[in-house]
Amino acid sequence: MSGTGFELLTTDGSARRGRITTAHGVVETPAFMPVGTAATVKAMTPEAVASTGAQMILGNTYHLMLRPGAKRIEALGGLHRFMNWPGPILTDSGGFQVMSLAKLRKIEEKGVTFQSHIDGSRHSLTPETSVDIQRMLDADISMVLDECVALPADAKRLAASVELSMRWAERSKTAFVSRDGYGLFGIVQGGTRPDLRARSAQGLVALGFDGYAVGGLAVGEGQQAMFETLDVTVPHLPADRPRYLMGVGRPDDLVGAVARGIDMFDCVLPTRSGRTGQAFVRRGEVNIRNARHAEDPRPLDDACACPACRDYSRAYLHHLVKAGEILGAMLMTWHNIQYYQDLMAGMRAAIDAGTFAAFQKETTSRHAMGDIDPL
Amino acid sequence: MSGTGFELLTTDGSARRGRITTAHGVVETPAFMPVGTAATVKAMTPEAVASTGAQMILGNTYHLMLRPGAKRIEALGGLHRFMNWPGPILTDSGGFQVMSLAKLRKIEEKGVTFQSHIDGSRHSLTPETSVDIQRMLDADISMVLDECVALPADAKRLAASVELSMRWAERSKTAFVSRDGYGLFGIVQGGTRPDLRARSAQGLVALGFDGYAVGGLAVGEGQQAMFETLDVTVPHLPADRPRYLMGVGRPDDLVGAVARGIDMFDCVLPTRSGRTGQAFVRRGEVNIRNARHAEDPRPLDDACACPACRDYSRAYLHHLVKAGEILGAMLMTWHNIQYYQDLMAGMRAAIDAGTFAAFQKETTSRHAMGDIDPL
Repeated sequence: MSGTGFELLTTDGSARRGRITTAHGVVETPAFMPVGTAATVKAMTPEAVASTGAQMILGNTYHLMLRPGAKRIEALGGLHRFMNWPGPILTDSGGFQVMSLAKLRKIEEKGVTFQSHIDGSRHSLTPETSVDIQRMLDADISMVLDECVALPADAKRLAASVELSMRWAERSKTAFVSRDGYGLFGIVQGGTRPDLRARSAQGLVALGFDGYAVGGLAVGEGQQAMFETLDVTVPHLPADRPRYLMGVGRPDDLVGAVARGIDMFDCVLPTRSGRTGQAFVRRGEVNIRNARHAEDPRPLDDACACPACRDYSRAYLHHLVKAGEILGAMLMTWHNIQYYQDLMAGMRAAIDAGTFAAFQKETTSRHAMGDIDPL
Repeated sequence: MSGTGFELLTTDGSARRGRITTAHGVVETPAFMPVGTAATVKAMTPEAVASTGAQMILGNTYHLMLRPGAKRIEALGGLHRFMNWPGPILTDSGGFQVMSLAKLRKIEEKGVTFQSHIDGSRHSLTPETSVDIQRMLDADISMVLDECVALPADAKRLAASVELSMRWAERSKTAFVSRDGYGLFGIVQGGTRPDLRARSAQGLVALGFDGYAVGGLAVGEGQQAMFETLDVTVPHLPADRPRYLMGVGRPDDLVGAVARGIDMFDCVLPTRSGRTGQAFVRRGEVNIRNARHAEDPRPLDDACACPACRDYSRAYLHHLVKAGEILGAMLMTWHNIQYYQDLMAGMRAAIDAGTFAAFQKETTSRHAMGDIDPL
């Protein structure tokens, strides 16, 4: 095949069970991709990541182009070999991080120029160089460069941005070197405006991509606005291509988005929260730094099979996190990634069984409970 | 049996192959104990520690009594269960850390009072409370509280310290609750003075302990002074008890000490160095932060079977350490502990084969080479 493959296995309402095929393996969907920003899922070995059931991870083009550099990674055999992750990898285009991290950025028709947040060095990204960097990284799925507008933005500004992103998407597609098992995804933009989302989706579908992402919804606009935007965007996307909601989110965000036809997710929340002592568990959320966990012999989550829950008490995790021990970050992160993967596996099983609505109701009510673990 | 057991299996010159038996398992000697200061060998899971061949680890009484507290660890089932290390554990008495970390310390005949370096709270340690804390931690081997004098110190000051430590050792022995598989070790002090070392060793042997440590030699007095002190101390120790050189050291320190009849070691060097990007390898030492490793596809040490060497390039480790990634600390630490355990296994095999002198010569010459890995 040219490009990545997608097989739609079954549906349950708008929720979809699918399978993406890439050069480095298959990904069962709905899928959550742990974020491996700088060629590592922070505080985890690749073996630990794989043990949770994760099949695909995300790498960040912005970080990797700055350090250690795409050419270096290419010379060392590509990102899979460099970081010892033999499975599928998706890379973003770098655009979002340029907007959120880089300094002195300047956006023009040609592309974006910026200053590295690491050492102040000058760099540029164009649709063509972004695609080329992602090829050097050997990403199974590459993303088109798009402009990410800070919200709120007025309709005129949003519309201009959608048009610029569309021209960039077309240039990205032209630049993309077609290879078996390697795909390029377009990114639907348009803020929370249904007309612009429709325009963006239709334009991208007319160009034709291996998959379609929904961008610009991980920037604090709230769950309701996000769901409403998905409701007016997803119907414009073809059923025979995977749909990826970028940078989202909390467990109940994922469940609600799958209910609206989304297949793929990535988010730093489980890894970042793990490093600061926040755990997602089946009965809500746990801040392990809280003093009431100091003597608690119970596991974080007694229904979880991860090592943090299998071998350690909340009291021990509390101790590690309070003492600033690296093992605390390692175990809390491991648990959170396991929790997210278990959540995805639960959604896949529910769709297979035709019971997704019940799964959604039960999961959403649990996650509304917060930190609810009395001794 | 009452106490820990020790079987002297064979000797090769002064080097000894032995086996310590404890309540939580056996330890083949010569042995290196990774340091698990705050109930964790920093940046490693217990499974990773065990995978290197380490059989016994060290815990620090000072750190654990302050956080999370000995009573809490006892209530949670002891240190083995708390930190998920089912094997043997040795704890120090807390004395050395009080001298090096605590504030406003005051040493009297009764014991030592001090202020916590964490929160400034007031605490005390006496020979009796130190032994009791180590019992609460469930340490397989406890150490007597001793006074660690800052060197250089004059003969009178050193002699007074040896006598105080001797009285504390006797009180420690009286306070120690005899249990099968649990032992108490005395600690020989006396700085670099042969007469005081002899007096200290003879006095402790007369009291009778399950093993004997040589203390006060990890404080920068230099390798030659350390070896000379071992030469005048070890002959005073009984052959049928294990001998433990506290807080030492570099690989060539360990080899030279085993040649002088030492059986056990602990040191923060492999773990601490790992976290700062320094690796011990068979051809010398590697500072992975050095720019010349940035594009090096070779492993840290091609004769090492640890995951850091099996799955990753120097270029990747360089990238992780430069980027401050936790995985860098994890992999570098894992390698260093593997290196130390391989060194101990090599010494044990050489003693078994009667070839220790050749092993010592070869290892020592390699370690004198420094960082010698040209591309």
